[in-house]
Amino acid sequence: MKVNGVKIDDTYAEAFPVYVARVLITGTTTALAETAATVATGFATSVIGCSAEAGIDRYVMPSETPDGRPGVIIMVVHPSKKQIKSNLIERIGECVLTAATTAVFNALESEETVPVKLHFFGDGYEYQTTVGGRDVWAIPILEGEFICEETYGVQKGVAGGNFFIYGDSQGSALLAAQAAIGAIKSVDGTITPFPGGIVASGSKVGCPTYSTFMKASTHHRLAPTLKDKVPDSFVPDGVKSIYEIVICGLSEEVIAEAMKRGILAAAHAQGIIEISAGNYGGELGPFKFNLHEILSDYADPK
Amino acid sequence: MKVNGVKIDDTYAEAFPVYVARVLITGTTTALAETAATVATGFATSVIGCSAEAGIDRYVMPSETPDGRPGVIIMVVHPSKKQIKSNLIERIGECVLTAATTAVFNALESEETVPVKLHFFGDGYEYQTTVGGRDVWAIPILEGEFICEETYGVQKGVAGGNFFIYGDSQGSALLAAQAAIGAIKSVDGTITPFPGGIVASGSKVGCPTYSTFMKASTHHRLAPTLKDKVPDSFVPDGVKSIYEIVICGLSEEVIAEAMKRGILAAAHAQGIIEISAGNYGGELGPFKFNLHEILSDYADPK
Amino acid sequence: MKVNGVKIDDTYAEAFPVYVARVLITGTTTALAETAATVATGFATSVIGCSAEAGIDRYVMPSETPDGRPGVIIMVVHPSKKQIKSNLIERIGECVLTAATTAVFNALESEETVPVKLHFFGDGYEYQTTVGGRDVWAIPILEGEFICEETYGVQKGVAGGNFFIYGDSQGSALLAAQAAIGAIKSVDGTITPFPGGIVASGSKVGCPTYSTFMKASTHHRLAPTLKDKVPDSFVPDGVKSIYEIVICGLSEEVIAEAMKRGILAAAHAQGIIEISAGNYGGELGPFKFNLHEILSDYADPK
Amino acid sequence: MKVNGVKIDDTYAEAFPVYVARVLITGTTTALAETAATVATGFATSVIGCSAEAGIDRYVMPSETPDGRPGVIIMVVHPSKKQIKSNLIERIGECVLTAATTAVFNALESEETVPVKLHFFGDGYEYQTTVGGRDVWAIPILEGEFICEETYGVQKGVAGGNFFIYGDSQGSALLAAQAAIGAIKSVDGTITPFPGGIVASGSKVGCPTYSTFMKASTHHRLAPTLKDKVPDSFVPDGVKSIYEIVICGLSEEVIAEAMKRGILAAAHAQGIIEISAGNYGGELGPFKFNLHEILSDYADPK
Repeated sequence: MKVNGVKIDDTYAEAFPVYVARVLITGTTTALAETAATVATGFATSVIGCSAEAGIDRYVMPSETPDGRPGVIIMVVHPSKKQIKSNLIERIGECVLTAATTAVFNALESEETVPVKLHFFGDGYEYQTTVGGRDVWAIPILEGEFICEETYGVQKGVAGGNFFIYGDSQGSALLAAQAAIGAIKSVDGTITPFPGGIVASGSKVGCPTYSTFMKASTHHRLAPTLKDKVPDSFVPDGVKSIYEIVICGLSEEVIAEAMKRGILAAAHAQGIIEISAGNYGGELGPFKFNLHEILSDYADPK
Repeated sequence: MKVNGVKIDDTYAEAFPVYVARVLITGTTTALAETAATVATGFATSVIGCSAEAGIDRYVMPSETPDGRPGVIIMVVHPSKKQIKSNLIERIGECVLTAATTAVFNALESEETVPVKLHFFGDGYEYQTTVGGRDVWAIPILEGEFICEETYGVQKGVAGGNFFIYGDSQGSALLAAQAAIGAIKSVDGTITPFPGGIVASGSKVGCPTYSTFMKASTHHRLAPTLKDKVPDSFVPDGVKSIYEIVICGLSEEVIAEAMKRGILAAAHAQGIIEISAGNYGGELGPFKFNLHEILSDYADPK
Repeated sequence: MKVNGVKIDDTYAEAFPVYVARVLITGTTTALAETAATVATGFATSVIGCSAEAGIDRYVMPSETPDGRPGVIIMVVHPSKKQIKSNLIERIGECVLTAATTAVFNALESEETVPVKLHFFGDGYEYQTTVGGRDVWAIPILEGEFICEETYGVQKGVAGGNFFIYGDSQGSALLAAQAAIGAIKSVDGTITPFPGGIVASGSKVGCPTYSTFMKASTHHRLAPTLKDKVPDSFVPDGVKSIYEIVICGLSEEVIAEAMKRGILAAAHAQGIIEISAGNYGGELGPFKFNLHEILSDYADPK
Repeated sequence: MKVNGVKIDDTYAEAFPVYVARVLITGTTTALAETAATVATGFATSVIGCSAEAGIDRYVMPSETPDGRPGVIIMVVHPSKKQIKSNLIERIGECVLTAATTAVFNALESEETVPVKLHFFGDGYEYQTTVGGRDVWAIPILEGEFICEETYGVQKGVAGGNFFIYGDSQGSALLAAQAAIGAIKSVDGTITPFPGGIVASGSKVGCPTYSTFMKASTHHRLAPTLKDKVPDSFVPDGVKSIYEIVICGLSEEVIAEAMKRGILAAAHAQGIIEISAGNYGGELGPFKFNLHEILSDYADPK
């Protein structure tokens, strides 16, 4: 299959279940909410070495928020529900409560919830009130008052949605990856937790050479500089650079939609030779996203 | 003392010793290096709830870097040297190795060092080489090769430099704080680890009301909405909002310089009533930064 | 009338008819399209001293554009249709044709059109083709090929929609104005042509003191520092700073919607004392936007 | 000659004399000054179709400005001194006087000056005062007071400094161009007036096919898609995309320094095949910047 002249590999992305929480951070301006959101979702690319996977889901207009101010919804993802709770406490407590002009609200309706009791910071000076129909705490702080909800919805979601962009140069692959990330931003309920949404160093499970202490290592079969040095390289002729896009989201549907929009955007950039995806033969998780199915409506005529 | 008509409180900021590391992240463009730096220093406002305090120190022109590319120097701070090492491994490994086009180099000459052995990710395909006279590893990855040094200097530095900006409105205080942060950026060897460099919710040690489980709580004597509710409020008449600036750095000298430039910038914004600083009577740490000393050359004529 | 506790003046904004064109600029990434859009709409705040009023209308996802790439729609406004044409030729020719990776398409279906014949730049090497069903020219240039449509829709629209934000400090008024601009961005078919969308120096028609050569001058009755110096000041007690928001758009409907969302956002910021609007008793133009009508659904209960 | 493995063409850039003015725009924050600077220097890529060539020269710390606030220096360039004056009046009057929190000061000491009498906007309510030792006007406006100097230095400078980056893909060439622009920003006294500093559509003088009405047209001999279609193409084998960097500045020295830093940065990006420069055999202007001379200290060993 080809899309806009770019070969689409006949493969699938394999993904696995996680818990997901969503937090609305409002601020006096969008930029102020965004500053808090960026810091609160930092150092959260992969649960291999970070406390969670997190990122900005979407921007919210003032008319849609409980306090009539602009906002940013962040998503926090982890296989363990307990870790969701501790991440919310620490990431909101350290990075949003401290940020200028912000307030926080739950942004995920769900039967399952976790408590995030920030009001103790008020040392008894805090009080309960309502904002936009929500029960909140108002905590007196230096800048004024910090408004927060304390019950956050948690639900099962999907992590590890992915695709690979094969370029004829690093510049080609990178610009296509940036275009893909821009397109994925339009899909509510998804995040791309890596820096700028892009993974430069996709990994394989395990590390044969240093197996005693490394759980993952470079996906050497996809490393272009090793194409002629390893017997089983996957790198097609002419491919000089590859980027991976990794997507987490609320459901299989939004992951599939994000993959579709991202791949289409990448396929309309210059110098892209092929789009593929990563899987582990079903060992990683139960979700499969078949590229040819996702893109069936967009295949070039033969 | 007044500076540009703004009262300077006759007090001092109290600060404490920490370990500091500095890492140069280069990229094909400044924006790409900055993306990695922002993510790698995220979720790092305070060691109370984060694994470290971290931030961007300065931007570096291509002519100053080992690989001739633009770069960003980040600083990572922690009281424990061991935690510096683990933070470097995880923050670089998860947030820079994965980021598009980046390389990492040590940016702190020091006798004390910590090892940051990222090359194991190469699973034996990595090799040693030199870049700009530095011994580095080249790790084959999807985008090409990741270049990294593996020995990083660590030295004693200072955390907790601070000052408070008292405004006649939240807007006044916030714009002054943003001006201060802009000025502090010009002082090499310093970072301001909070979101946007600004603390909206300065804290006191301890939490009398919930003392069993909270180590810190809102600095209620500096909360403007409590001015008429607590008997010992520090909030001067007319002050509606206060922001704190917290600074970490390589030495007492750079902290003092950063405080000076930051306070001067804040004092030239509109609607600022007073500048003060936070201390704990010497219990927190050995470093004292007296505001009147720091600003002695800038006092308004009486 | 009050909205969220902020007084809404019982007055109206007066606006006048103009011609409007809309141009879609696509790029390999959103950031690249935005760079071109920003430069192409620069120096275009007011037709008093600029060749047009222009700005970014909205961002467009790759799935919505003829070439499958992300884009930015700009709007160019002028009372004279002839000036619309010359502005499109010069602003696209100098600022988009020259910008990296961009293409341009018409973004306004209209019976009235103006020709924008950029293909002559191709010196005969250009050729006609189709992209996404549109007839376009492909011009060989240094970076590759520049794709452009050459017929652009023009229609009658509205300029001069406006409101004033009265703050208790400059910081309060400014943050509220920034919040308003953020909200207005959500209304398709509108632009706010001043720097950052905000006017710091609203003017009155005429200049009594220097009447021979100045057509407009400072609106002294709205200047807070003159409150006690002019006999007829409009500035309410406690107001220290005022910003004006000026909106141009495709129709009265979108102007009214933008005013509504902008005012609501401003009224939810801190330190705002009143919202008003500017009119000239009907001498400027035929369109009237009554604040109490626009906000009738949002009035606080009495 | 090669630099970092990239061939440097044995040619020179040809440039011509212009008048130059520099204006310091200060604001409460750097971001606010930058907003005004960006708008004021918009629509100013080339005097072929714009009223001037303009751009941001450098960022200035609060400690360096007359009013103790952060600032941005812009440069405005035109062959005619009279046009410098009219551009300053209109660009400052429409885009800085109207911008939130800004003030303007002369940033070029020179015997030659032009008057920029903005104070008439004050309609007689303005008054003279001093700020940081400068004689300024204070004009009462809606946000407060606008502070401005009215005499601006003008001197002879250089326009048209340039070089070409030849890439193996559009992405490679673009990232290298962005790296070059980042490096050039470090050279005080220079601007790169095109969008993002980069020219995608370099032109030749004249337009043989449409000679009656076009003064310039695509530089077809440098268009990669025409390599096999025109008999005299300059495009080397393997080059898929070319970007031009155009530099204006205060003197030959700063242009040469900017070219040096920009070329070195571009040569350290990936996929760059050659660096060249544009000249017209001496017909365009008297200044010549020989690439091999500029880069003599950086040539690779043979």
